[in-house]
Amino acid sequence: MERHINGVKSCESQAPVAQPEKCSPAGSFDVSSSTADEQIAESFIRQAMEIIVDEAVKKATNVQEKVCEWHSPEQLKKLLDLELRDRGEPESEILQRCRDAIRYSVKTSHPRFFNQLYAGMEPYSMVASFIAEAVKTNLYTYEVAPVFTLMEDAVLRKMIKVIGWEEGGDGIFNPGGSLSNIYAVNLARYRYCPDFKEVGMFSAPRLVILTSQECHYSISKGAALMGIGTKNVYTVPTDERGRMIPSALEEKIKLAKSEGAVPFMVNATAGTTVLGAFDPIDEIADICEKHNLWLHVDACWGGAAIMSKKHKHLLKGIHRVDSVAWNPHKMLMASLQCSAFLVRDKTSLLQRCHSARASYLFQQDKFYDVSYDTGDKSVQCSRKPDAFKIWLMWKALGSRELEQRVDRALAMARYLAEEIKKREGFRLVLEPEFANVCFWYLPPSLRNLPESPELWKKLHTVAPVVKQRMMKTGSMMTGYQPLGEKANFFRMVVISPQVSRQDLDFVLDEIHNLGKDL
Amino acid sequence: MERHINGVKSCESQAPVAQPEKCSPAGSFDVSSSTADEQIAESFIRQAMEIIVDEAVKKATNVQEKVCEWHSPEQLKKLLDLELRDRGEPESEILQRCRDAIRYSVKTSHPRFFNQLYAGMEPYSMVASFIAEAVKTNLYTYEVAPVFTLMEDAVLRKMIKVIGWEEGGDGIFNPGGSLSNIYAVNLARYRYCPDFKEVGMFSAPRLVILTSQECHYSISKGAALMGIGTKNVYTVPTDERGRMIPSALEEKIKLAKSEGAVPFMVNATAGTTVLGAFDPIDEIADICEKHNLWLHVDACWGGAAIMSKKHKHLLKGIHRVDSVAWNPHKMLMASLQCSAFLVRDKTSLLQRCHSARASYLFQQDKFYDVSYDTGDKSVQCSRKPDAFKIWLMWKALGSRELEQRVDRALAMARYLAEEIKKREGFRLVLEPEFANVCFWYLPPSLRNLPESPELWKKLHTVAPVVKQRMMKTGSMMTGYQPLGEKANFFRMVVISPQVSRQDLDFVLDEIHNLGKDL
Repeated sequence: MERHINGVKSCESQAPVAQPEKCSPAGSFDVSSSTADEQIAESFIRQAMEIIVDEAVKKATNVQEKVCEWHSPEQLKKLLDLELRDRGEPESEILQRCRDAIRYSVKTSHPRFFNQLYAGMEPYSMVASFIAEAVKTNLYTYEVAPVFTLMEDAVLRKMIKVIGWEEGGDGIFNPGGSLSNIYAVNLARYRYCPDFKEVGMFSAPRLVILTSQECHYSISKGAALMGIGTKNVYTVPTDERGRMIPSALEEKIKLAKSEGAVPFMVNATAGTTVLGAFDPIDEIADICEKHNLWLHVDACWGGAAIMSKKHKHLLKGIHRVDSVAWNPHKMLMASLQCSAFLVRDKTSLLQRCHSARASYLFQQDKFYDVSYDTGDKSVQCSRKPDAFKIWLMWKALGSRELEQRVDRALAMARYLAEEIKKREGFRLVLEPEFANVCFWYLPPSLRNLPESPELWKKLHTVAPVVKQRMMKTGSMMTGYQPLGEKANFFRMVVISPQVSRQDLDFVLDEIHNLGKDL
Repeated sequence: MERHINGVKSCESQAPVAQPEKCSPAGSFDVSSSTADEQIAESFIRQAMEIIVDEAVKKATNVQEKVCEWHSPEQLKKLLDLELRDRGEPESEILQRCRDAIRYSVKTSHPRFFNQLYAGMEPYSMVASFIAEAVKTNLYTYEVAPVFTLMEDAVLRKMIKVIGWEEGGDGIFNPGGSLSNIYAVNLARYRYCPDFKEVGMFSAPRLVILTSQECHYSISKGAALMGIGTKNVYTVPTDERGRMIPSALEEKIKLAKSEGAVPFMVNATAGTTVLGAFDPIDEIADICEKHNLWLHVDACWGGAAIMSKKHKHLLKGIHRVDSVAWNPHKMLMASLQCSAFLVRDKTSLLQRCHSARASYLFQQDKFYDVSYDTGDKSVQCSRKPDAFKIWLMWKALGSRELEQRVDRALAMARYLAEEIKKREGFRLVLEPEFANVCFWYLPPSLRNLPESPELWKKLHTVAPVVKQRMMKTGSMMTGYQPLGEKANFFRMVVISPQVSRQDLDFVLDEIHNLGKDL
């Protein structure tokens, strides 16, 4: 029976058929009754939920457990038995597959997971994401998504208020910050010349996007996708802290113009991926006003700072910009994905830029106010109700605890930076101004070498080996990368409230233990 | 205490501090210990899971319950109390908000929900989506997503095999079929001229996409986004069943060329949104070969037919095409979203077209085979492990039950079409060849009118009113739309195995009851 939770019994397979006349002439199928067994389905879901709580909530967040159980792709393929076959498997086997999927996955909620710009377990947001999955809602029309349409609207309004756009604005949640940045480029282009939507860019002047050299790679990806081209993304030099230099921006704008190209937007980054740098928005806004350029702020990572009275100065000037990308799934800990795109426009630019007016979905003769059918603002058709993940969390915690979440993350960064300065063999790449703590670890063998290209060349090889060892022991995970001329260094961000000072001390101890023989 | 499940206690607020020295000098925060209370979190999650099973699984699929509880946006805003405040709310209130979110949402798993091209409750896929949310995995690198990277690979390989690309291929899961179609356009353009990625399309010849007039609107949206322009999407006329006419395609290709434009791709639709029409892939492939055009098949809706020995003929020729978009979240019932883009290329076209080689994420000095870091194939950065939703379901059901799911959906369509033909006042728009059943309902007042523009004008107003009434009673949901010159008609698709013949009889009875006075 397990085979038939949601399967189908054909007439042929039902040997003793009590009412054979129920077999429709329309095919060989019994269409007379449901073939789904709801009780078996419910029992399966309940058992799986137990596994999720035990393995993906309790065990995954237990500091005594491993962060990851490393296996090479070839080993893991064998362990998982990935092949999809003609015959299904019984319930007990599927439940074991659920356990295995969790077991071999990296525990991103673990207090020693620092590998990305998200971490930790957020129960409210997690529950919201379960509900979103269970009710299977697609966010295109009010008629099919009444609750989540209104929640998205409420969250967008609140974010707009927090940003300080007093006249209001518009927005949409997207599957990731890259798409939000792509929306910004599209709106900026549409404002510059709405005709491109219809005629394309074949006879357009060469358009140029300006962004710092430390910006997220989605700006380039977007430019390629949108027919603008990666070479027409002009990168502006940054200062020693990774912040765009406004005078250099103005020079690049002039350069583009002198080439006969048309600069049409500037992307400022609030919280760069590696260093956590904040471009000076206010100064950049002055330049954009002067040259009539769209100003977008990629605040996917750093946007959370605006929740904090203490740290919102990092985003000074954001009330002046045209659009913002902000991912509450990062520092605010909403479930993946939760990415907002916000635009300071009240003329339906988002809708006009993206609409296709599909008559099968966005009928204009509906009985309710079709301005609530927000799907035509999107480049997607199916779209998940991601705003619910932050709405429920915000309701539960209030702005105040979200503020404390941000303040704590930055206090943790400060603590870690101070510890690094105290410890032999550790060296900060720069003093953190946000949550990113970047540092080198020098094994004893390198500590007495003079500053030289040779030292940096050797140091460059340390982080990858330490990373390999930490993954193979499963004790922790943190990222490393080179940056410009800088040799590979570690980047730590502390997001989860579950992380304590002891965990950060452990991180430094463990890096030393894993790398001291190098 | 409820306030602090995942909140933060600042030093100041902890009146009797036993170890005041633990307050870090780095800020006013106690960084010495975790501020998350795992037990409260676990208890909250368990209670919420009970609500989900009771309300979103059991009640939502119960045919005795309503499909929706209609409220106008203004009414619903009041019921939901959407405002986000400074203070959080206690657990009991948040749990009530979970109940309300489910209560006022449309029950898309209900056996009388037929409003979109997805429906029904699929327990395996639902559980997979819960696990994906709980483990919070982003699918960019093997290092952080080992399990789901391999599962995506396994599912893509299987789908490629089912399609019949004997040499293999490549692919990626995207947040929705619209993005998959956009990927197709981008790959086709990249193959035509890889330089566009760098230099944009400013000096390119005018590019033209060819697609049928019944294609999904994402082709136009994509063309606008990608700088090609909606006017450069040439629509090819369709026959009386909504299928692209191959000779008309060839004429349009010649037309574009005669204008000095460059046709570079054809989009064929396998299963149009409204009529469920299948463009003749084999004949179109001949034309594309002759003119050296990329052939993409938007099989988001109709791709499922390939699982069925009985119905796969609808996709005849698909083994010859360059790329396919196929959404298992539609007829196969995987959880939203589950959208595959597949490409018959073995030269890393997907990677070359989209890569940005971000050094902080896709380090080349990693200790494992970095070809498993699939994130750089995507235009996203964060990406959900959607393939898991079909992988677990396929493991549980096997190809055979997926096949039966498709066969049953088409048998149901056949049953419904036959019933419509038998009933007075119902008229098929056309005989279904797939799962879409399109029909008009004529109230008694219209039945004796002669065929005339006036009749059609009156008939056009019937479906919107019936739709309004069905939503206000909450008895069922089905879509309606106009199409070309055709007046508003209903479109039904039956996907859920929970639907029985009785439900379809009910649908026709109910439409009559709701509309007979019109």
